[in-house]
Amino acid sequence: MKKVPEGDNQPRFVCERCQTIHYQNPKIVAGCLPVWRDSVLLCRRAIEPRYGLWTLPAGFMENAETVLEAALRETHEEARARVDIIDLYALFNLPHVNQVYMMFRAELLDLDYAAGAETLEVCLFKQQEIPWEQIAFRTIDQTLKFYFIDREAGKFRFHMGDIVREHERTEFVQRRQGQVVVR
Amino acid sequence: MKKVPEGDNQPRFVCERCQTIHYQNPKIVAGCLPVWRDSVLLCRRAIEPRYGLWTLPAGFMENAETVLEAALRETHEEARARVDIIDLYALFNLPHVNQVYMMFRAELLDLDYAAGAETLEVCLFKQQEIPWEQIAFRTIDQTLKFYFIDREAGKFRFHMGDIVREHERTEFVQRRQGQVVVR
Repeated sequence: MKKVPEGDNQPRFVCERCQTIHYQNPKIVAGCLPVWRDSVLLCRRAIEPRYGLWTLPAGFMENAETVLEAALRETHEEARARVDIIDLYALFNLPHVNQVYMMFRAELLDLDYAAGAETLEVCLFKQQEIPWEQIAFRTIDQTLKFYFIDREAGKFRFHMGDIVREHERTEFVQRRQGQVVVR
Repeated sequence: MKKVPEGDNQPRFVCERCQTIHYQNPKIVAGCLPVWRDSVLLCRRAIEPRYGLWTLPAGFMENAETVLEAALRETHEEARARVDIIDLYALFNLPHVNQVYMMFRAELLDLDYAAGAETLEVCLFKQQEIPWEQIAFRTIDQTLKFYFIDREAGKFRFHMGDIVREHERTEFVQRRQGQVVVR
């Protein structure tokens, strides 16, 4: 049942039998943007949601991991790829699904990649080859857009913003200093 | 009971009655480093753990929030302070307690701060006044150290690393490209 624990201000799931409070908090999705020369590595999903669509290797961070370890693990699980992490590149809040995406820019160490269990195929794409209409998630689409814009400009910078759902559409919103309202 | 769900590779808590899988993932702690001229704002904790010690306003991010909103909410709840966020300043992984800290650099908008319900007192400290021996958490100590080093150098940059516990001590470890091992 849900009730407000003592000293708290929000209702939580509390076990009626043992009174354990089951807090529910946003989950971190960690992933990589693996780059090889002028190409980026994408995976075609072998699982729902978005079966058959293209994505960057990413997945839920597990307990006892660091964000970086989670990104490397997902890259290996989904694309069997080995990478060097360059830096944290993009952070997306998805408040409507209680997720925070953290995407790292990375360099592919070799071409020994292959489809993992949750992947149909893994391919390198040059910018003009990206299947923009078949990208699985808004976060991945936005990460790729940032990457090609920054690469063109010759300067990569950290990006942070929100993916919000409005009227059945998802939009990327960058909140700057002073524009943020505490809900 | 714990069992490995189909298609998974790790044991999860699965309800014996309804088969709901209760995933447990790292939680995000979001907070602020509020600055006023040459001083920073610290809160003295009115709750355990670390009752009576000093900290920066920070706390668990809730569902339906963004990281930024969580940092602003905690700053208001604990210090009754209003700030403008400048940027994401430090990210700490704490794999031994399944937490990820995200600390934002922020500017205090006015001096109308006050102790919130979980705070004994709120004070501005100049660098030489910081009670280093009475800082509540290693993450907060490290955030303040980064801040004063960067301020001295005249350039603030994003910091990322791990707080690891070894032999009863906690240490900050910055993992650079190529040094990361997938556990």
